[in-house]
Amino acid sequence: MTFTSLELRSEITSAGELRLSLEERSVDDPGPDEVVVRVEATPLNPSDLNQLLGPADVETLAASGSGDRPVTTAAIPEHLRAMTAARVDQSLTLGVEGAGTVVAAGVSAQDLLGTVVSAGAGQMYTQYRKLAASDVFPFPDGVTPQQGASSFVNPLTALGMVSTMRLEKHSALVHTAAASNLGQMLNKLCIADGIELVNVVRSAEQEEILREIGASHIVNSTDPDFVKELTAAIGETGATLAFDAVGGGGLGGQILAAMEASLLAKNPVPGPYGSPVRKQLYIYGRLDRSATALPISVGMAWSAGGWLLPYHLYRIGPEETQKLRARVADEITTTFASSYTSELTFAEALDPATIRRFGRMATGEKYLLRPNGR
Amino acid sequence: MTFTSLELRSEITSAGELRLSLEERSVDDPGPDEVVVRVEATPLNPSDLNQLLGPADVETLAASGSGDRPVTTAAIPEHLRAMTAARVDQSLTLGVEGAGTVVAAGVSAQDLLGTVVSAGAGQMYTQYRKLAASDVFPFPDGVTPQQGASSFVNPLTALGMVSTMRLEKHSALVHTAAASNLGQMLNKLCIADGIELVNVVRSAEQEEILREIGASHIVNSTDPDFVKELTAAIGETGATLAFDAVGGGGLGGQILAAMEASLLAKNPVPGPYGSPVRKQLYIYGRLDRSATALPISVGMAWSAGGWLLPYHLYRIGPEETQKLRARVADEITTTFASSYTSELTFAEALDPATIRRFGRMATGEKYLLRPNGR
Repeated sequence: MTFTSLELRSEITSAGELRLSLEERSVDDPGPDEVVVRVEATPLNPSDLNQLLGPADVETLAASGSGDRPVTTAAIPEHLRAMTAARVDQSLTLGVEGAGTVVAAGVSAQDLLGTVVSAGAGQMYTQYRKLAASDVFPFPDGVTPQQGASSFVNPLTALGMVSTMRLEKHSALVHTAAASNLGQMLNKLCIADGIELVNVVRSAEQEEILREIGASHIVNSTDPDFVKELTAAIGETGATLAFDAVGGGGLGGQILAAMEASLLAKNPVPGPYGSPVRKQLYIYGRLDRSATALPISVGMAWSAGGWLLPYHLYRIGPEETQKLRARVADEITTTFASSYTSELTFAEALDPATIRRFGRMATGEKYLLRPNGR
Repeated sequence: MTFTSLELRSEITSAGELRLSLEERSVDDPGPDEVVVRVEATPLNPSDLNQLLGPADVETLAASGSGDRPVTTAAIPEHLRAMTAARVDQSLTLGVEGAGTVVAAGVSAQDLLGTVVSAGAGQMYTQYRKLAASDVFPFPDGVTPQQGASSFVNPLTALGMVSTMRLEKHSALVHTAAASNLGQMLNKLCIADGIELVNVVRSAEQEEILREIGASHIVNSTDPDFVKELTAAIGETGATLAFDAVGGGGLGGQILAAMEASLLAKNPVPGPYGSPVRKQLYIYGRLDRSATALPISVGMAWSAGGWLLPYHLYRIGPEETQKLRARVADEITTTFASSYTSELTFAEALDPATIRRFGRMATGEKYLLRPNGR
């Protein structure tokens, strides 16, 4: 049985044009250990949007092509073209993760036929995806593809932050952009596991989102007393580890310095080197693309660095990764539930006005693609 | 036998005055496992100067007291007083390291009597220092106290950088403020051990100092082509580890970004996260006290952090530390030889004009104290 599958592609040409289109592909019979998944729901994660749009200027988005084969183009600003060199003139497949129903299965994978599964193997912005049976993860009965679409990136990132905390012997966490989908999930996870979490947000609305799900420590970086409140919350929780989605500017440095100030207030240390207790800042996103500024008041026992989920999963190894995945499958409708701002068909996702909306990556907003929707 | 010992003290009063003075102390008989060292030579390291002067304004230095009991004072600027809170109104002893002759020894330490030894146990700005026999390190015959005065801080820091490189599986190094006493020593060590070292300096004179001792890779941060030359030198050596004495400003970030650019030039990686090869920046000094700026072009596989010798020795443990010390003792007149700008008696070291000279901590300048000199 062969399936005809439309898939969403992104290409940046050597002339500096972004081109989004739908390409038809045929997906043939699965091998003995393979399955074909009808992809019903796949999220637009920030990392997907980076791949989809590159550094294109969304103000130049324009629609062309026909009704069922829309093509959308945009210009890449001259000074940002160098960063796209590695992908120029390649039509990229997209979509880190998604969920759907197994519609064909090889002889060794017959038990999966008809079940709802998730996959995180990439190329999910397609109607039908052939995958190794070992790359799909079935859900307990009753879980829908919409509920299971975001089973990898956010749940494993939240679990990865907690497992990093345990591995590196910290006892509490600080998180920025804390009202994001991921941030909300991290709060539910920390509440479930009894871990103290300091949430850093940028608005009163975001404070409210987190208060409603039961967060205990919320500080607003736009408050005049922000540094004082941050230092107090860090002092109460004893957090010496922070995950920062903002990346650029002074926020990460303020957090490390607040940790140092809180440690010195508890245990004054003479001499110029500050507290010997190690403080760690991990930057896992770059909402602010300016340089990261770290002040001298962080002391000497500090570390800052990039954090990416694949590097972390490599670090903990396949056995530990499998434990995290099993927990996600069990708690996908509770701890790891995602909510979406709106659901989009492929045609809707190529609409310039819609792209400008999801391209903002506003905190707390998240969009779901329905490749087989009309 | 009791020794009368003058020692150099530094106190910062609650009124914001720095006060340097000589205090008389009597050093009594050593216990069975102890020795008394007549301290002949002890260096003014940057870390000693931090303790000696604190954040005092050297323009306000003034001499008082009598000829053989000079007292020197200076003002601590109002806005810097908070950083001195942990030491206020305490008369601090000083001097991380030094060398001298064992002039008295307990029954279990008689073999040390008359030998030239070094010690790194602190409080060496004194004429006679009582120490545990296990805290002194005898030199091979013929080594003078002047030659042995700097046996800990610089030699162990240079060896510690190389041992960090091996421990964290890097294969070459970048070093800033590279024409310093430490930087020259690191070059001799890397040449001896066949390790590639990229030296970052700030002037043509500093380039010349390093060229004379045989350094292969020297880049000048004041050259218009600095970033290009730095990237080329990093590419040639494959360095993914840097030790930075400057700390503040953009230099550390430029080095990480040059490592990333060099890695991507060798192995282009599609996608927004850059090279997966880990790049490490260690900040071990703060010649520039402004914030450290790290640009987005460092990619995601990077880490930056404080590096201090005591933390490193704790990390490698006592057995490995002992191996490093033994090598220093064997090579103190060759690989780990220090040279000094000038030698100072206690009285000379308290002279305001002299303090202003050594207080600048100019690269390549280093001063030696002779506590028993006249």
